Amino acid sequence: MKKLIAEFIGTLWLVLGGCGSAVLAAGFPDVGIGFVGVALAFGLTVVTMVYAIGHISGCHLNPAVSIGLWIGGRFDGKDLIPYIIAQITGAIVGAAILYIIVTGQMGYEGIGSFAANGYGEHSPGGYGMTSALVTEIVMTLIFLFVILGSTYTKAPAGFAGLAIGLCLTLIHLISIPVTNTSVNPARSISQALFVGDWALGQLWLFIVAPIIGAILAGLLYKFLSPETND
Amino acid sequence: MKKLIAEFIGTLWLVLGGCGSAVLAAGFPDVGIGFVGVALAFGLTVVTMVYAIGHISGCHLNPAVSIGLWIGGRFDGKDLIPYIIAQITGAIVGAAILYIIVTGQMGYEGIGSFAANGYGEHSPGGYGMTSALVTEIVMTLIFLFVILGSTYTKAPAGFAGLAIGLCLTLIHLISIPVTNTSVNPARSISQALFVGDWALGQLWLFIVAPIIGAILAGLLYKFLSPETND
Amino acid sequence: MKKLIAEFIGTLWLVLGGCGSAVLAAGFPDVGIGFVGVALAFGLTVVTMVYAIGHISGCHLNPAVSIGLWIGGRFDGKDLIPYIIAQITGAIVGAAILYIIVTGQMGYEGIGSFAANGYGEHSPGGYGMTSALVTEIVMTLIFLFVILGSTYTKAPAGFAGLAIGLCLTLIHLISIPVTNTSVNPARSISQALFVGDWALGQLWLFIVAPIIGAILAGLLYKFLSPETND
Amino acid sequence: MKKLIAEFIGTLWLVLGGCGSAVLAAGFPDVGIGFVGVALAFGLTVVTMVYAIGHISGCHLNPAVSIGLWIGGRFDGKDLIPYIIAQITGAIVGAAILYIIVTGQMGYEGIGSFAANGYGEHSPGGYGMTSALVTEIVMTLIFLFVILGSTYTKAPAGFAGLAIGLCLTLIHLISIPVTNTSVNPARSISQALFVGDWALGQLWLFIVAPIIGAILAGLLYKFLSPETND
Repeated sequence: MKKLIAEFIGTLWLVLGGCGSAVLAAGFPDVGIGFVGVALAFGLTVVTMVYAIGHISGCHLNPAVSIGLWIGGRFDGKDLIPYIIAQITGAIVGAAILYIIVTGQMGYEGIGSFAANGYGEHSPGGYGMTSALVTEIVMTLIFLFVILGSTYTKAPAGFAGLAIGLCLTLIHLISIPVTNTSVNPARSISQALFVGDWALGQLWLFIVAPIIGAILAGLLYKFLSPETND
Repeated sequence: MKKLIAEFIGTLWLVLGGCGSAVLAAGFPDVGIGFVGVALAFGLTVVTMVYAIGHISGCHLNPAVSIGLWIGGRFDGKDLIPYIIAQITGAIVGAAILYIIVTGQMGYEGIGSFAANGYGEHSPGGYGMTSALVTEIVMTLIFLFVILGSTYTKAPAGFAGLAIGLCLTLIHLISIPVTNTSVNPARSISQALFVGDWALGQLWLFIVAPIIGAILAGLLYKFLSPETND
Repeated sequence: MKKLIAEFIGTLWLVLGGCGSAVLAAGFPDVGIGFVGVALAFGLTVVTMVYAIGHISGCHLNPAVSIGLWIGGRFDGKDLIPYIIAQITGAIVGAAILYIIVTGQMGYEGIGSFAANGYGEHSPGGYGMTSALVTEIVMTLIFLFVILGSTYTKAPAGFAGLAIGLCLTLIHLISIPVTNTSVNPARSISQALFVGDWALGQLWLFIVAPIIGAILAGLLYKFLSPETND
Repeated sequence: MKKLIAEFIGTLWLVLGGCGSAVLAAGFPDVGIGFVGVALAFGLTVVTMVYAIGHISGCHLNPAVSIGLWIGGRFDGKDLIPYIIAQITGAIVGAAILYIIVTGQMGYEGIGSFAANGYGEHSPGGYGMTSALVTEIVMTLIFLFVILGSTYTKAPAGFAGLAIGLCLTLIHLISIPVTNTSVNPARSISQALFVGDWALGQLWLFIVAPIIGAILAGLLYKFLSPETND
């Protein structure tokens, strides 16, 4: 139960921090944080939570991560569904807190596209569905590859939190223009629920693609893993 | 006594570095550091001081942090008032040094809003009191949650300074547009004293909300803490 | 064989992440990541991969790095050619994935100069061939010097990945305006193949200069190395 | 002798990297790195060199640092003059390499103010001599305080390089608008020699103020130091 509370709080923070920085601060006139600041914010939600709750739940904060770790033989399958439920619930509560903050702005005129993910005309840079699929699959694949590799017993202890969090920063530096960057179905669901409409219609891609990428990474790492033959 | 001197110097640095970067460099034409630079500066004041004085005083630099650690059972209540006095005094001296630097600018025309915190018409992005309260409570709650978690004995040794400092960076990336980001009563007091007027009138929120968040975090972590049941 | 797969994936990531951020996100209107974001992205490809695959292949991701480590006495010469082939192949596949993503943009009108390296009229800031040669030689020399020094047994264990990755960030902060920054023949080859024309004509410099810098660093560090006389 | 070569190379890198990023990349149109990028670059020159040569020479790269460590009882006085000579020589060679690169730009029209430090009309933001003195003294004082504290035996091993390097980043985030940030006489001398004129006339401040700050920090830390009484 404590593990699930930890995943709930952690994923709440990922959405409130990552999507929050995007919605509140990215486009602020003249001194806004831009995509660099949003990329940094997403990564730091993970860095901070790995050190805070890593010793409690493992700090997945992402259904694709839990699935990839399960495929890679690092996570017990019986915890998979409870983890995913805790993550999605936390993400939605994080989005709700952000919604409360945003609607308190003077002259508030709606949340627009919030920080929802999209492709085609809803891609920040106008990238089509194929670009979005390739991007989300490959980015999640490498993300899980880095997670599996940096938490391996031969990797330097303690540094995995930095490597994994900064990998999420890097993924955002590359791919915000393409899909607004998901690699995390819980994050995408939380935003689509508040935006509705097109965001719900395109949500399937941000569930399917990250999961495909995560499964491929789990299989790849199992093959490469120094446990089996070094 | 050495602990109090360490807290004094550390909080002086937090204000001089964090508020100083905001006042001196954020809006510099064309090459200014913007909110990203200010967020980085606040976080790095903590990163640098954790490694410099963490072994002397624990490096709180913030009355809300001292209160949260006390509630969480990590800090002795008899040191609470002296720590808070050292922090507020250090913050004011830090603001005074910044004031001296700022007034030496050619064509100086007053400190404006310095780096004071505010809501409503004094929020950088025009966010109302409810948004400000929610933001400051939740941000401080997570800040203390990360502090308590990353300094727990099972967390990787040494990394807490990075996790905590970068958490303060993250909090600023999200919330500068809402309240100019406090999560620290000492920082808010130091600026309001120099700005006077509306800044003093709104100061209550930046004392009350961080303390509420810190108390909630202390209680939450005590419940989750692996010490009691793992 | 696993080492070569690791080098292949790592160099693929270096090109997809570093060049990808440059092509997709650097010049995005208003909120683009600029040279700072690109510098961060290149460095983070290395940080993430050092912790993920460092224990498998050593994580060179760069023919100049393999050559410098070989000259410095840290890498077995018989692995040199296979490593370089894996790196160049990975770089090209990384560029191909980026090409697929880029061509999926609505209103796509060609890849332009992609993230190719150049001098003279193809230098971002219009720097001539001598500036380019000096820059690439010196930057690669210091890069290898930092790699050799931070992986020495007396350096603090585990931190080399941060030092080396952030060194690549630093090198980009300095030299993107001069040559678009190579210090890595595999990265340069991968872009020139897709751009053709002038990029292939100037490619020699981005193969020769990094290798010269790497050899000089290997010789310098051997002289300084505390192994021989301390 | 190896220590001096290490200090020479490290200080060369500090000037080439820090001042180089300022001169080449800070003001690049649209995608330039701005003061944030320059601040990051200066800090990363130290981060990279601490891990590369810290085990050889201690990685001072700055006469004020050597003096502060000597006053603080951490550095042998007989090495002081050779270290300072190596640092100043390295800084000048770093500036010379930068000069060669800069003059190779097409349409080159002089180095302007290079990355020289200044006050009054030569302060980037027009800050007077008193502001400059206060800024340089206080910034160097805290810099040395962080160096002395983070390298103390009770501080977490290995992290000092990050704390010290990122402290230099922080100092630049605050004070580039005031003096273009020195805290390092070797860095200031290297630029003033190439600019001549007013830069040589104002150079005294960037030698005197950092040394005063460093001496004060050495005395302060000796008083606070847990070695004497804990």
